[in-house]
Parts: sequence; structure tokens; C-alpha cells
Amino acid sequence: MSQTKSQMSVPLAALDEFCRRVISACGANEATADAATRAMMHGTRHGVDSHGIRLLPHYIQALEGGRLNKAPQLRTVTNFGAVETLDADNAQGALAAYTGMQRAIALASAFGIGAVAIRNTSHFGPAGAFSIEAARQGLIGFTFCNSDSFVRLHDGAEKFHGTNPIAVAAPSSGENPWLLDMATSAVPFNRVLLYRSLGKHLPAAVASDARGFDTQDASNAQMLAPLGGEFGFKGAALAGVAEILSAILTGMKLSFDIAPMQGPDFSAPRGMGAFVLAIKPDAFIDRDTFDRGMARYLETLRASQPRESCRVMAPGDREWAVAALRDKLGVTVDPVTLVAFERLARRYAVPMPSP
Amino acid sequence: MSQTKSQMSVPLAALDEFCRRVISACGANEATADAATRAMMHGTRHGVDSHGIRLLPHYIQALEGGRLNKAPQLRTVTNFGAVETLDADNAQGALAAYTGMQRAIALASAFGIGAVAIRNTSHFGPAGAFSIEAARQGLIGFTFCNSDSFVRLHDGAEKFHGTNPIAVAAPSSGENPWLLDMATSAVPFNRVLLYRSLGKHLPAAVASDARGFDTQDASNAQMLAPLGGEFGFKGAALAGVAEILSAILTGMKLSFDIAPMQGPDFSAPRGMGAFVLAIKPDAFIDRDTFDRGMARYLETLRASQPRESCRVMAPGDREWAVAALRDKLGVTVDPVTLVAFERLARRYAVPMPSP
Repeated sequence: MSQTKSQMSVPLAALDEFCRRVISACGANEATADAATRAMMHGTRHGVDSHGIRLLPHYIQALEGGRLNKAPQLRTVTNFGAVETLDADNAQGALAAYTGMQRAIALASAFGIGAVAIRNTSHFGPAGAFSIEAARQGLIGFTFCNSDSFVRLHDGAEKFHGTNPIAVAAPSSGENPWLLDMATSAVPFNRVLLYRSLGKHLPAAVASDARGFDTQDASNAQMLAPLGGEFGFKGAALAGVAEILSAILTGMKLSFDIAPMQGPDFSAPRGMGAFVLAIKPDAFIDRDTFDRGMARYLETLRASQPRESCRVMAPGDREWAVAALRDKLGVTVDPVTLVAFERLARRYAVPMPSP
Repeated sequence: MSQTKSQMSVPLAALDEFCRRVISACGANEATADAATRAMMHGTRHGVDSHGIRLLPHYIQALEGGRLNKAPQLRTVTNFGAVETLDADNAQGALAAYTGMQRAIALASAFGIGAVAIRNTSHFGPAGAFSIEAARQGLIGFTFCNSDSFVRLHDGAEKFHGTNPIAVAAPSSGENPWLLDMATSAVPFNRVLLYRSLGKHLPAAVASDARGFDTQDASNAQMLAPLGGEFGFKGAALAGVAEILSAILTGMKLSFDIAPMQGPDFSAPRGMGAFVLAIKPDAFIDRDTFDRGMARYLETLRASQPRESCRVMAPGDREWAVAALRDKLGVTVDPVTLVAFERLARRYAVPMPSP
């Protein structure tokens, strides 16, 4: 055998089953196991590994600690026309976000547009997973959330916003959806930690020292910079859009008031909000015109002149390429996650996912 | 007299009146004169001079040439629940956008959220002008449009998207609204032209040469770069959000199909789309909780530690400061615009705005 265990590829289906079984074994209900697994597998399948199955041990810790409710009763607490507020009862965040998006899709089907403000939720994983649900059903989906502070303001010298993601997915008939899933910082803090451990220099204008000045020395980076570098006021304001919709419109915590994702406290709910929105194209225009518009846009975009030695891609194209590869070849689990999985397998008497 | 005419400040009210009178004198109806003037004065009052009164000669040329309809019949052509499609009948763009936003506000008042796709419109000036209308009425407003191509794709080497703005305004009780009004390129092409005429170097990663490689030599810049520099895939995707909502959802022209704003043809309508959306906070949460959330967010943001010799500002703060100054002192009209105004004054027998 030339490969060590940690270098072997594991089929996606085996990872999916392992996540579901561990979450169920810890006592969470089936809806939680299903939603959390689907969101993590969206990340892992599409190469967004920071928001993939590496989150499983984290979610288990939060479920076991009491931060997350193992059997939440999600319920609509206000509704007014095409909008609702969903109280997620401290559900794992993906269950809250999938539930909210399903309601937004139902509202958009009835009213052309629908939005759901989600209260009492928690970390939901990759924001794109929820927007894509709308796109798969023929709608344009938007997902926003805020998160604990990691990002300075433009010209700021302290952590203020979270990486506050914005994800938009638009249906493209017969094809994978158009998919934007972005942090409003240039990079996630995980990237800084990775560069720190590798001793590599960071790209310019992505992270800052304790005084708010940008640094490429990962070991000296204390916070992230908002997207845009010299024009970081745009990235900071986009983070603000996510903050206003996710925290203020829900009456939930502002980023700087949210307890750190990484603990030490895993017992108290974090009081987070999120916001999802769906738009039904057919409510504005006949479906065929919309579909032809998307097709022409994407064709022209992909055929656009690239710069030398580069390739122009539509938002999501990189993700679909990774997904096609991983559907076929499986995925190599990183060593840290593999160790954590072995621990979970022993603890809950669940067989390790087989290569 | 120590000041030449071109250096004298003109009160905003005099500029407002001049714009209205010239637009009316060219034969456009009162609704057009009012909307176009309000949007331009939003730009001029708030220091967004690229989208202020310097556009007057341009709009007159488009109205006289036939690109814009002097007496458009705007009408709702489809409606479905909380959304409508407005055919603007080739109105001047600000009239179309204000009309669309008023409908979105009415829909949001009835359904909690409302959106209007606008067909057959044209250049509307500063996107923030329309979002702020929603905020002034207590709602969160979103405005999107696409425009003729100026911006390359990430890793692209030709113009593809327009500067495709996104503007969001949120009400803040007793205060000026929170206001984001951003191009999805780092800078507008006007900035490149200005630096070219001044012989100044451009900031890094804002403009590219004919092969798509970034250049700081303004005279060599052939196109704009999407917001984000190395992470320009985010700026390009945000431009895509504006493109999908404004052009595809309306069945109007994609950026690369839109005739250039600057002509030479000023006779044919440009077939542009736009998209506006309003959200009523009270439909989700009691007003007092929302207002207190906005107040705490903005107070904390403005008090956030700045980096040395810097100041942290909320989106819009710079604009309100300029507005306060210009309300008091008026504004100095740039020499090119002043010459154009003198020509318009003679042509339409309208007195020049007096200093």
C-alpha cells in the first residue's frame, strides 16, 4: 500500500452517511442531521472545504454542549404578506436556513418575491447552499448572515463585522445555477491561519496588524481587512448590508456582541440572525425570455477574451468543476479532520467512512 | 473682484431651478424635469459630482435627440403579488427609477417587501437617490442597474459589464439614512479620464491595459477592473447580480449590447433595464427594536477605534458632511459644466444660475 490512510480518497456518499450517523448518534433529531449534513456536503462537494465536513466536530460540540438545540421547534412568529419571521429555537444553523429558504420560496411562489428573517439561529455553514435551493426550484435566491467579529472597518483598527457572507444563486435552465458565495472580507480568517502554519506571505490588503495597518506577515495578522483594499469602504458597507438584514431586522446580536464561534462557551445559544430572500423570475417576465437571457449572458461571459494564460469563469464554474471531480474520485479528508472523525467514530460507535 | 466667474459658489436652489427650467424649456414634461433634477441634485448636493448637474447637457442632448421620450407614458405591464414590471416608455432614467421605487414602496407597505423590474429606461444618475427615497419613508431600499461595458471580468481582457451600481439605504430614526451607493468596479471611468488629464498615476488594481493587465498609467488604461483586485471575482459577480436583476429579469439589454452613453447616436432608445426593491422593517419586527438596533450599530461603528490619523465613517457619512457644507455655501461649478450651462442658457433663453 503506497498511500497512508490520511491520503486516501473517500466517496462523498460515505462522508454524507458518516455525518448523518454521528449527528443522529449524539441525539439530534433527523431534521438536524439531514440539514447539517446537506450543508456541509455542499461545502465539501464544491471545494469550499473551510465550510465542509471539517465543521462536523464543531457542530457536535455545540449540540452536546447545549449551544444548539437537538430537537428544535422552528416556528413562524410573524407574517405579513410576502414576509415572515422564523424563530429557529436555537436550531443548528443549516436547519434554520434551509427551513427559512423553503418558506421564502413558498412566499415567492405566491407573491413573486418572499423574504424570511431568521431569529435564534447559529453558524449555518456555506451560505451558497441555501441560495442554491431557490435556484434549483427555478428562483433567484439570496442568503445573508452576520457572524462574530473578525474584520476591521475601512480605516479601522479593531475587529467589527464578521466575515458576513452574501450568497446569490440564479437558475440557468439545464445547467448548474449561477452562484456567488462570498465573504465581505477579502479572505476568511482560516486562510490567515493556514498561511501562518505554512509560513507563507499573505496577499496584499487582506489582513491587518493590531493597529489596523495591512500586513502580509500571517503571524502578525490580528484581523481581516474588508474586501476592496484601498476601496475597502465598499466591502465594509456590503458587510453592513448583511448586518442590517441579519441582525437588526431580526432583533438578534450585532457581530461585535456575538460570542466567539470557537468557544470556550459551548452551552449558551449565540442569539444569531440570518436573512433569506427568493425572487420568482416568472412573476416579472415569461420564463423563456429569462432562460434565454441567462443562457446568452453565461455563454458570452465564458467566451469573453481572457488575459494571457488565464481563464474567464462564471461565478460557480470553479465549484461545479470540483464537484464533478469529487463525485467521481471522492475527497481526501485533511489530517486534522480525520483525527477528529476517528474520535467521533469511537465515541458514538459509528463506523469510519470507508475509502 | 478676486474670483473669476468659474470659481464662484452657486446656491443649490439656483442650480436646481436652472436644471428644471432648461429641461422644461427643451420640451420635456414636468415629471421629467422634476425627477431628472432631483436625481442630479442628489449627486451634486452629496458630492457625487460625476452623477450631479454635469449630466444636464447630456440629458438635454438625449431628450432633444429622441433617445429619451419627453412625455413618456409609464405604465405597469405585469403585476403578480408583491412585484410589478414597469415599462418606462423610454423615460429619462431618474423618472423611471423614482416611479419604480414609489411602486416598490407601495408594494412593500402592503406585502412587507416589494420589487419592480423597470423596462425601457435609460441612464438614471446616482443609484443612491432612489434607495434613499425608501429610507426616507422608513423602508430599506435597493437599486440596481447595468450600463454600457467598461469593466473587464476577473482574468478577462475585454470590457464586459458596465460599472453596474448597487445602492442600499436603510432608515435610521432621526438621522440621515445609512447609505451605500457603489459601482461594482473599484472606480468609475471618469476617474481614469480625470487622472489622464492631470497626468497622475492611478491607484493599483483599478484599471487595465488593452490586454487586461492592470496599469497605473492612466493614459494606457483601456478598461476598468472589477472591485477587489486579486479578489476581483467578487466584484465581477456583484456586477453580475446587478446584470441579472436589471437586464435579464426585465428582458432588456445586457451591458455589452447597450449603445454607448456618450453616443454618437442620440436618437435611438438604449433599451436599458433597472431593478428596485423595498423592505418594510415593521413587517418583520417592531419599529422600536429596529430603530434601537440601527442606532446602536451606527454609534458603535462611528466610535470604533480608527487607525492612526484616520477616521472611521458609516456609509453615507461623507455624503451628509458634504451636503451640510453645500447647503450652506453652495457649490463651485466645474469649468466644463459652466461652459455647457452658458450654452444651454442662451439656447433656451433661461437665466444662468446666479452665484
